[in-house]
Amino acid sequence: MEEGIGLRIAIDAMGGDLAPEEAVKGALEAAAEWPDTSFVLVGDEGRVKPLLNGQAPPNVELRHASETIGADEEPVRAVRRKKDASMVVAARMVKEGEADAMLSAGNTGALMTAGLLVVGRIPGVDRPALAQTIPSADDVGVLALDLGANADARPEHLHMYAVMGSLYRQLVHGMERPRVGLLNIGTEEGKGSELAKEAFALLSGEAGIRFTGNVEARDVLQRACDVLVCDGFSGNVMLKAFEGAAALIMGEVKQAFTKNVLTKLAAAVMMPGLRGLRRKMDYKEYGGAPLLGLSGVVVKCHGSSDARAFRNGIRQARDAVRHGLIRAIADHISGKEGSGG
Amino acid sequence: MEEGIGLRIAIDAMGGDLAPEEAVKGALEAAAEWPDTSFVLVGDEGRVKPLLNGQAPPNVELRHASETIGADEEPVRAVRRKKDASMVVAARMVKEGEADAMLSAGNTGALMTAGLLVVGRIPGVDRPALAQTIPSADDVGVLALDLGANADARPEHLHMYAVMGSLYRQLVHGMERPRVGLLNIGTEEGKGSELAKEAFALLSGEAGIRFTGNVEARDVLQRACDVLVCDGFSGNVMLKAFEGAAALIMGEVKQAFTKNVLTKLAAAVMMPGLRGLRRKMDYKEYGGAPLLGLSGVVVKCHGSSDARAFRNGIRQARDAVRHGLIRAIADHISGKEGSGG
Repeated sequence: MEEGIGLRIAIDAMGGDLAPEEAVKGALEAAAEWPDTSFVLVGDEGRVKPLLNGQAPPNVELRHASETIGADEEPVRAVRRKKDASMVVAARMVKEGEADAMLSAGNTGALMTAGLLVVGRIPGVDRPALAQTIPSADDVGVLALDLGANADARPEHLHMYAVMGSLYRQLVHGMERPRVGLLNIGTEEGKGSELAKEAFALLSGEAGIRFTGNVEARDVLQRACDVLVCDGFSGNVMLKAFEGAAALIMGEVKQAFTKNVLTKLAAAVMMPGLRGLRRKMDYKEYGGAPLLGLSGVVVKCHGSSDARAFRNGIRQARDAVRHGLIRAIADHISGKEGSGG
Repeated sequence: MEEGIGLRIAIDAMGGDLAPEEAVKGALEAAAEWPDTSFVLVGDEGRVKPLLNGQAPPNVELRHASETIGADEEPVRAVRRKKDASMVVAARMVKEGEADAMLSAGNTGALMTAGLLVVGRIPGVDRPALAQTIPSADDVGVLALDLGANADARPEHLHMYAVMGSLYRQLVHGMERPRVGLLNIGTEEGKGSELAKEAFALLSGEAGIRFTGNVEARDVLQRACDVLVCDGFSGNVMLKAFEGAAALIMGEVKQAFTKNVLTKLAAAVMMPGLRGLRRKMDYKEYGGAPLLGLSGVVVKCHGSSDARAFRNGIRQARDAVRHGLIRAIADHISGKEGSGG
């Protein structure tokens, strides 16, 4: 580690559709923005080095990794076999204390696996969760977990998601008392599946969070809560339903705009006003999704991340480290285990 | 029953936000459109009779029912206690062969309960399902079941939903070989929750349907399938996510349109082109949702149904009776039980 630099972040330079170019660009931008943080670009030297143009700033270094994990590879197999994959090397750096955090825009399943097998879980966390931010009407966003990393969940998992998500919003997003909501098919207590009912009871009894009850999918985009707790199956269905509805409507609007000369003129008039909408639907704005429950900071960036998305992901990873997220989650769990059993 | 009139439909005149006015209006329109069908308006004589203006056509009659079930009443309790509720009386008419079908825009849970307790299930059907039509980009719509009537489901339930939904599309909507899809969080086989995986296996082995595999929520609106099979929890989440996204986007578009004089002018130019979109998002267009698996035709109309929605619901009920839906479902089940065990 460089002298005088307190914080070190490993970046899987080979992960994502636009890697390594955008990963490198994002890291260089971040290095300029945060001189107190050092960055390790992990990846194929032959491809990454030329991108640095021989003028990498002092807080950016390159770590060669001879392998990469493809987007379609079977996660567990890939992580087990490719010991020198950029993602695995970055995870190992976190495990061994060589880096405080890692980021990747690569294969989500492989990153989950590398997190579990290489970085490892916080003792007491049965299952880590990927916490993604869903854009909301007011641009603040809703942190939702789990959105599909695990298709099945037990009530205890949802309980842990609630605790971890709440701590993340407090420490990384600076929210004082984030409202935790449970995704359900009705707002009243007693509604929903057996899983939802049991989770409701656990969340109601958890003093460490501000549980505000059930939230329906239609109210999520209006930010009915700050942390949305859900099982991966219905969470993923919700997310893809948002995407599908948005795509359909925007497609229709576009069609209406390009109908004739008059509507095209109208479109030109409307465009500035609709830019906010487009921004709202751009998940890249929100940067990375943390993998919560691991004993190190691991952030997943969207597969199509550009430099700005990488930089946003880096910001989240950096803030998580600076505000002691991992310690806070571990303390909550051990404290609870001590007092509650 | 009137001489020469073959088909008789009972209408809960008191159910829905706009009852009894719109229910009566819808029935009168239907009576004019289908003179071969007779209609029984079931409800409070004091409120329904004046709406007929003393000039009810020969194929419309009134059946007094002294009670009504409110939108917020606890379903099982309400159906058990209110023997003379309009909804319960209509269900009894179906049970006793006095009517071939019934419709209601009232309390959904109560209608499910009346269906189960009064009309009764087709032997072999473990659980009836409410099949709703989700608007699609091509205006054909996707018949989805279950969308929330039952929060939890077993694989065998999803199997039965697939069979019943497929028969409905064939017989009532005239589709020759409807594509049946399973709501899942990935398209490949082997994806999803335990429930989804087991349901996938059952649907793959069902010769009576055309199973085309998993469907993601984002592809539903593009009509990736004709019948969408899902558990009530994730189905309901999907539906409400569609609604939420649509509300958010339309709100933003509206805001952009009303920003200043120029954008208002643009809005005027755009409106005709956007009418199709509005229609697409108007669930009323699609009329009633059949409750499949009961030993009689029961159709749920949306709570805010107007006359046109009632008439559309009546059309579906009428077509279900005319094409022998109940018999077809019963035959499929008994045939299968005979051959497959």
